[in-house]
Amino acid sequence: MRKIIVGVMGPGDNATAADLKNARELGQLIAHQGWVLLTGGRNVGVMDAASAGAKAANGLTIGILPDDDAISTAVDIAIITDMGNARNNINVLSSNVVIACGMGAGTASEIALALKGNKKVILLNQDAVESQRFFKSLSPNNVYAVDSPDAAIAIAREIIGDGST
Amino acid sequence: MRKIIVGVMGPGDNATAADLKNARELGQLIAHQGWVLLTGGRNVGVMDAASAGAKAANGLTIGILPDDDAISTAVDIAIITDMGNARNNINVLSSNVVIACGMGAGTASEIALALKGNKKVILLNQDAVESQRFFKSLSPNNVYAVDSPDAAIAIAREIIGDGST
Amino acid sequence: MRKIIVGVMGPGDNATAADLKNARELGQLIAHQGWVLLTGGRNVGVMDAASAGAKAANGLTIGILPDDDAISTAVDIAIITDMGNARNNINVLSSNVVIACGMGAGTASEIALALKGNKKVILLNQDAVESQRFFKSLSPNNVYAVDSPDAAIAIAREIIGDGST
Amino acid sequence: MRKIIVGVMGPGDNATAADLKNARELGQLIAHQGWVLLTGGRNVGVMDAASAGAKAANGLTIGILPDDDAISTAVDIAIITDMGNARNNINVLSSNVVIACGMGAGTASEIALALKGNKKVILLNQDAVESQRFFKSLSPNNVYAVDSPDAAIAIAREIIGDGST
Repeated sequence: MRKIIVGVMGPGDNATAADLKNARELGQLIAHQGWVLLTGGRNVGVMDAASAGAKAANGLTIGILPDDDAISTAVDIAIITDMGNARNNINVLSSNVVIACGMGAGTASEIALALKGNKKVILLNQDAVESQRFFKSLSPNNVYAVDSPDAAIAIAREIIGDGST
Repeated sequence: MRKIIVGVMGPGDNATAADLKNARELGQLIAHQGWVLLTGGRNVGVMDAASAGAKAANGLTIGILPDDDAISTAVDIAIITDMGNARNNINVLSSNVVIACGMGAGTASEIALALKGNKKVILLNQDAVESQRFFKSLSPNNVYAVDSPDAAIAIAREIIGDGST
Repeated sequence: MRKIIVGVMGPGDNATAADLKNARELGQLIAHQGWVLLTGGRNVGVMDAASAGAKAANGLTIGILPDDDAISTAVDIAIITDMGNARNNINVLSSNVVIACGMGAGTASEIALALKGNKKVILLNQDAVESQRFFKSLSPNNVYAVDSPDAAIAIAREIIGDGST
Repeated sequence: MRKIIVGVMGPGDNATAADLKNARELGQLIAHQGWVLLTGGRNVGVMDAASAGAKAANGLTIGILPDDDAISTAVDIAIITDMGNARNNINVLSSNVVIACGMGAGTASEIALALKGNKKVILLNQDAVESQRFFKSLSPNNVYAVDSPDAAIAIAREIIGDGST
């Protein structure tokens, strides 16, 4: 009965145009799989774009938020934590798989917390060689680097176990 | 687009038979209203009974959990916090209205945190005069005492604003 | 080597003059015992008064704070949580004994969280019969009601085990 | 009146012999400066070694802990959070400067959370080129790489402002 949740993490205020395009596409693809999308829930950057993409495909969206302000209008279920970045750990532990779309200090903390919690992480930040090298050095078996939303979903399907048919 | 969430809080390990019956009925009634049910998510006591009631009525259920163990099978969306009772604050802040079904130290903390966060709380613990007096002394305008699940839902409807038609 | 920590919890913005006088005296008495004082750390109400009292008696003071703003000048060690009331649970779990000085929704949440965590709580809020009755109904063996800072310290000494000589 | 706190973060279970030696030396040097040492507080790895070093030099030590188990005997002040890795954010926000001694997923999360919170981070993990490159790419002005505990303390002094005389 428990639903499969896929987390999409990425920059709020410093997302690139490519990050936003990828995030929106990830949201759509996650909804198409019948998975629930989980993000940081605010009305900016990757979290907003991914949520909007999922809603455009009739998906269900969860936002893990610091407070009741500036919630993305594409969030169905708003979880209010009264916490700042301590909530990053909730984001990743609640996700069956984490997809990092873009990079920044907050996103890096989520990737590291995911690996600490034995979660698998898919890095969709095409040209960032440093981050791929670093996170693979931390956890060689739990980090995947991809160059498109489609490739991210294909790996997520394998991890989750829906890709076996 | 954002869904209405009603939290049902109550004892895990020391729930009475009446608490469990009320919790199950609350879950059903919440689902019938089209609201999402939020609980502490574990497979015991009021949280388990309320979630089972909501699922029996085809509702959507969220559990805010300490970890990945002992999750109620009636929880659709499991939010894993890696926190013990600090998560009680998340439970109440994420709920449009909080219904306390039964009483104990954990439930009392959730009621107090809800009042601290300016949430309205409905007390469904029929014979507990001390708790009604105490919480009304803390916040006279935000505490309601009722003696049946139906009465709790009627007040929740007024608070949420669905009862105006 | 580990130091004994006594938490003093009470209203920030709505403390009465009696609460503030009691808090200051508690801080002094705690420092005289050689105990560390722990409070919510902000520059208002009971937490500020208790911290100032402890510093006047050359004690050591810890504040568990939401952020870096409005810290009491009488706090030696500021622990910044980036959390709102979720930090209330940290306050009580880190204290060997909790003294509640005055009452309000936040203080009530700390008392309840302390009892949930099997901590002993001393209520110093003289005339509040409702709160004494309620918390004793939750946990008869862990709640003490006193009517003066001296009486609170005497009970704290017994609980901590310094009073046996 | 508020004390200067320096956080030393590093592996618990997978610390190398060099990490432990550096940690112990960092603890001593921090105590010699009159600063308070903050760690994760458990009785293993870098946190235990740093705390022991600080106590050997008569320093004051704080541990930010998940629970009341397995606390380092060299911790003076134990802050019990009832949180797992969400407490990592508390560790770094409570520190004036963060020194990372060794590397792992947990340590990486603390560095990233520190940078997210605009804290300066000193990396003392001599040969780990990937981590230096990665964190400098995230925040060029807030990351320092050093190759000895003495060099770490010299930079910490500059950051804190004690090095100006």
